[in-house]
Amino acid sequence: MLPTPKKFFVTSAGAEGHSKLTAFDNALLKARIGNVNLLRVSSILPPGCVYDPDLVIPEGSLVPVAYGSIVSDVPGETISAAVGVGFSEDTFGVIMEYSGKCTAEEAKEAIRQMVAEAFATRKMNLVDMKVAVTQHKVEKIGCAFAAVPLWY
Amino acid sequence: MLPTPKKFFVTSAGAEGHSKLTAFDNALLKARIGNVNLLRVSSILPPGCVYDPDLVIPEGSLVPVAYGSIVSDVPGETISAAVGVGFSEDTFGVIMEYSGKCTAEEAKEAIRQMVAEAFATRKMNLVDMKVAVTQHKVEKIGCAFAAVPLWY
Amino acid sequence: MLPTPKKFFVTSAGAEGHSKLTAFDNALLKARIGNVNLLRVSSILPPGCVYDPDLVIPEGSLVPVAYGSIVSDVPGETISAAVGVGFSEDTFGVIMEYSGKCTAEEAKEAIRQMVAEAFATRKMNLVDMKVAVTQHKVEKIGCAFAAVPLWY
Repeated sequence: MLPTPKKFFVTSAGAEGHSKLTAFDNALLKARIGNVNLLRVSSILPPGCVYDPDLVIPEGSLVPVAYGSIVSDVPGETISAAVGVGFSEDTFGVIMEYSGKCTAEEAKEAIRQMVAEAFATRKMNLVDMKVAVTQHKVEKIGCAFAAVPLWY
Repeated sequence: MLPTPKKFFVTSAGAEGHSKLTAFDNALLKARIGNVNLLRVSSILPPGCVYDPDLVIPEGSLVPVAYGSIVSDVPGETISAAVGVGFSEDTFGVIMEYSGKCTAEEAKEAIRQMVAEAFATRKMNLVDMKVAVTQHKVEKIGCAFAAVPLWY
Repeated sequence: MLPTPKKFFVTSAGAEGHSKLTAFDNALLKARIGNVNLLRVSSILPPGCVYDPDLVIPEGSLVPVAYGSIVSDVPGETISAAVGVGFSEDTFGVIMEYSGKCTAEEAKEAIRQMVAEAFATRKMNLVDMKVAVTQHKVEKIGCAFAAVPLWY
């Protein structure tokens, strides 16, 4: 089987670029995960997975990651992305992602509700939550990005 | 290299949620793969990969999966998702995914044609097919989901 | 951790199909990666990753891949997809993907600019670039696909 991740952190950033993909790339760089290979996952915090905000991941690594992202080429538009990790008492957690044409506060509120719903559905107690959010005002082509990288 | 999966099953479910992502999450839970990390793949059944409908996958695992999914927030709308696994006599198989605003029967028929075309193109004999399909009528925000999880 | 890829090649192809997914499948087959499981990544060439155009990947393998793809069901439409790998002198490279309703030349030019921007942002010297591009004129349902498969 594929090895289950043991560590995680949360990160977010907004950036501009000359194209939609380079705006995304620039947001990844500002979020400190621009030089790895993101493998998008949907999206559980494995049991025992430990928060490590100083994690340094070797360049080019295959990195499982849950993320929300939005790109816009409408100057002046406000875009936001958020992720939330909900923690249970003693087992796995649940990760939610959100992005939209809204403020950081609205994205954060959406995430809080989604994480709460995910725990309610599973009949699990939500004991804590970690959220990362970013709001970006588009100049030409902008990206708002928020992620939970999982690592070993 | 990444280890090649050895087992698979097929699953599908429809569900409601308070948001599009939690509707998706709820469909995953009903489909018995809500507590793992889905890694979406496109989409071959490895040679020798064995059908195991009782597979239990540890929570938080990275699970390669082929899936079709549709989310709708139009009350009353009928949505469906289907997957099909086509089997050859003695080598790999081919997985196809479909989702749309249609009935289960239509999704199933689309899948059958796609699997047949995939085998015809490869000049391979299609000896059997396994299909999973779900139809969901949207109340507020609904998701139809069908998947072929691959495992070890 | 997941093993970091050691080899890569570039490939591209256009194809028709009876559905959007089988058009994509047929393009993958023409691009020589139709019988593996593509795991989409975003998109760094790991340090030391070696170009191997004759790479043969076992059927059903999980293959990390960066790709651009477009499907169209508008007869007569011209669609293109391109990928570019930018090489640094002595460390990792950067992969960019592009697809659109344009010619191969336009897709190639877009890729060149994106790779150049990615290196400029990172304050790295771009010493070489490898590009794969395909242009396809849609008959009924067509796909243009370009990819950088990563392997071991």
